Amino acid sequence: MKAYQELSREELMDLKSQLEEEYEEAKRKGLALDMSRGKPSVAQLQIGMGLMDVLNSESDMKTEGGFDTRNYGLMDGIPEAKKLMADMMQVDPENVIVCGNASLPIMYDTVSRSMTHGVMGSTPWCKLDNVKFLCPAPGYDRHFAITQHFGIEMITVPMSPEGPDMDMVEKLVAEDASVKGIWCVPKYSNPQGYTYSDETVRRFAALKPAAEDFRIYWDNAYAVHDLYDEKSDSLLDILSECEKAGNPDMVYEFASTSKVSFAGAGIAAVAASRANLDFMRKSMTIQTIGYDKVNQLRHVRYFRDIQGIREQMKKHAAILRPKFEAVIQVLEQELGGLGIGQWTKPNGGYFISFDAMEGCAKAIVAKCKEAGVVLTGAGATFPYGKDPKDSNIRIAPSFPTPEEMAQATDLFVLCVKLVSLEKLLERE
Amino acid sequence: MKAYQELSREELMDLKSQLEEEYEEAKRKGLALDMSRGKPSVAQLQIGMGLMDVLNSESDMKTEGGFDTRNYGLMDGIPEAKKLMADMMQVDPENVIVCGNASLPIMYDTVSRSMTHGVMGSTPWCKLDNVKFLCPAPGYDRHFAITQHFGIEMITVPMSPEGPDMDMVEKLVAEDASVKGIWCVPKYSNPQGYTYSDETVRRFAALKPAAEDFRIYWDNAYAVHDLYDEKSDSLLDILSECEKAGNPDMVYEFASTSKVSFAGAGIAAVAASRANLDFMRKSMTIQTIGYDKVNQLRHVRYFRDIQGIREQMKKHAAILRPKFEAVIQVLEQELGGLGIGQWTKPNGGYFISFDAMEGCAKAIVAKCKEAGVVLTGAGATFPYGKDPKDSNIRIAPSFPTPEEMAQATDLFVLCVKLVSLEKLLERE
Repeated sequence: MKAYQELSREELMDLKSQLEEEYEEAKRKGLALDMSRGKPSVAQLQIGMGLMDVLNSESDMKTEGGFDTRNYGLMDGIPEAKKLMADMMQVDPENVIVCGNASLPIMYDTVSRSMTHGVMGSTPWCKLDNVKFLCPAPGYDRHFAITQHFGIEMITVPMSPEGPDMDMVEKLVAEDASVKGIWCVPKYSNPQGYTYSDETVRRFAALKPAAEDFRIYWDNAYAVHDLYDEKSDSLLDILSECEKAGNPDMVYEFASTSKVSFAGAGIAAVAASRANLDFMRKSMTIQTIGYDKVNQLRHVRYFRDIQGIREQMKKHAAILRPKFEAVIQVLEQELGGLGIGQWTKPNGGYFISFDAMEGCAKAIVAKCKEAGVVLTGAGATFPYGKDPKDSNIRIAPSFPTPEEMAQATDLFVLCVKLVSLEKLLERE
Repeated sequence: MKAYQELSREELMDLKSQLEEEYEEAKRKGLALDMSRGKPSVAQLQIGMGLMDVLNSESDMKTEGGFDTRNYGLMDGIPEAKKLMADMMQVDPENVIVCGNASLPIMYDTVSRSMTHGVMGSTPWCKLDNVKFLCPAPGYDRHFAITQHFGIEMITVPMSPEGPDMDMVEKLVAEDASVKGIWCVPKYSNPQGYTYSDETVRRFAALKPAAEDFRIYWDNAYAVHDLYDEKSDSLLDILSECEKAGNPDMVYEFASTSKVSFAGAGIAAVAASRANLDFMRKSMTIQTIGYDKVNQLRHVRYFRDIQGIREQMKKHAAILRPKFEAVIQVLEQELGGLGIGQWTKPNGGYFISFDAMEGCAKAIVAKCKEAGVVLTGAGATFPYGKDPKDSNIRIAPSFPTPEEMAQATDLFVLCVKLVSLEKLLERE
């Protein structure tokens, strides 16, 4: 394949009219496919249905310690659920609070509490003129939405396959006391599927923040979400690294079973130092008498232990892998060598990140939509929804079937080619 | 029975030494009973166990409209759960958002959101120097805990069997723009079991608040929690009354199935005008991708409709009624005519409210505790935990068995007598 940049204007024009014809034909197919969100597919949800059988009207509803899960109390989670979620995050159960059905509300509540009550004695952020968060990008749009919602200024930090640009992180955190946090998806990052290197994790743990209430928001959403047995990424435990570095209180870690059991009805947890958890408990004990402990019990009885979760994740991988591979195969076959796009090949997680030529992402997403394929909005992976290069597109292969994924990706590459051609022709 | 006030000093002294002997004897029994919280008993939890059978691995997990409850989405609740909770509150499903496992977090989140984001465009409360809530008291300690947690000033409003002192409420709400809310448990109030009269509800609906962001926090916790078929209280629907009075946005109503299905694993909802709900949804859509819809589906499949809930509540009443009656019988038999205490006889709810002689409540609670019976802390039913008369004690008869309740109440009346005697002797 010849790179588009090396084609003559005539060759570009010819190719364009040929691709436009293909696009018109594609539109006539009336596709209606959604690659926009990291939603588990029906097949994935189906493998968790055993969860619905572990409790019935004859079940003993007590924890191992004899606490009735149906009643009020045990505000910070049943002990066996703490153990399960601790093992998922590779931390000590004492460092875990188990909450409701998803980790997003825990993150939201953590930021909200910091606004109204500060962090372990610091000034409430709502009383400060400036509060800033560092946002490695491309990143997770719902993280950015939380900080934007609370009027927190977001500073974009570039990502590399090793993690965020740590020189920049170290400098900003050390110099600016209004920097109160950084959003991280450290394993199989959303959307690139990168896993932070050991060095990156250690540099995080060794940060010297100017602000006492600076925290790392470590969203370990894909802790056990490997696609392959033989080449899964591994991530250092940030809690013990922070402790070793003399910064035990500097991190909150979040995780859930949303993509292990059910996306709408899992269990979620936060891990942090005892001092952080004690401070959280002060608000939580006002906010709730207890999260849904019956669902915690259901999860524990179903998965039994981390090994049970790992077995389940192999079943998820078996469903997800062909979809990721279908996308990557089409990308390589159709775009390889053309010089008009780059993409990641993750070993886990829920996304593939695609970088188009500068200034093309929005047009590609719009063109896909016109022909019936919905992608995550261009820009969504950046703070304020603004990708400075208008280049990044997040591909979420999980929800459609592999056949639909191949169809959708065929259309996607067609749109990438067309928009890139138009861009190149403009330039001349 | 002769009232204690009419006894001579000698008679009081004689009685005292006799009662002290009884008390020492009671202590030797080594009681360990808890009348402190409105917790359902094991027998009550048991009648809801059918809830664990309605979903199994073969179940269709979709809503009637075909939405898969196991996946992300439907942030404000599945339609059939909206209908169920709407019927419980006697409002339109369009005015309902169904949330997680309890109503307390909805109330907390509502206050928290007002702190950081104001109310439908008003100034965020955290930017104001003064924010006040009216607190009809005796009332629910967890309400007061929320407002105290956010530094909101609480103003006590006296309660009567008709509801809060509406002259005072009208005046304060109309004159003081820093009054932003009022906590209400309008039916079978916590702890007195009073139900607001139609006139009270209409006066609430017709309030003319100085603050545009004033809201009534209508915690309809005991909407369907009648103890008797033949003499259940009825409450006017505040939403439609507010609408009729030209104040459609002035109220938030809260309810849950915590004391219908499981206290730890029910479903909860908020009802309000469309404008209020739209404003809430703006934050909720940042806070969550959706609450636990599988548990919403489970509740809908189990109860089917409001009639199913009513049938369930009759079973709860059959368990609760004898406990309430055991307490009241002992109170009447042992304290009737003595002039040292008054108590309520509710037709529903979870509590009996007891008013001791002024300055006696703390001592009574302490004396009960010393002999193994735990009551709600004296003062808990007032803002800041301070009962100005040190008189009110909340009795929660639900958790112990009727026999235990009778035992506990025997001890309670003994302590009431002893402390009252001591008080009377001090005075002379």
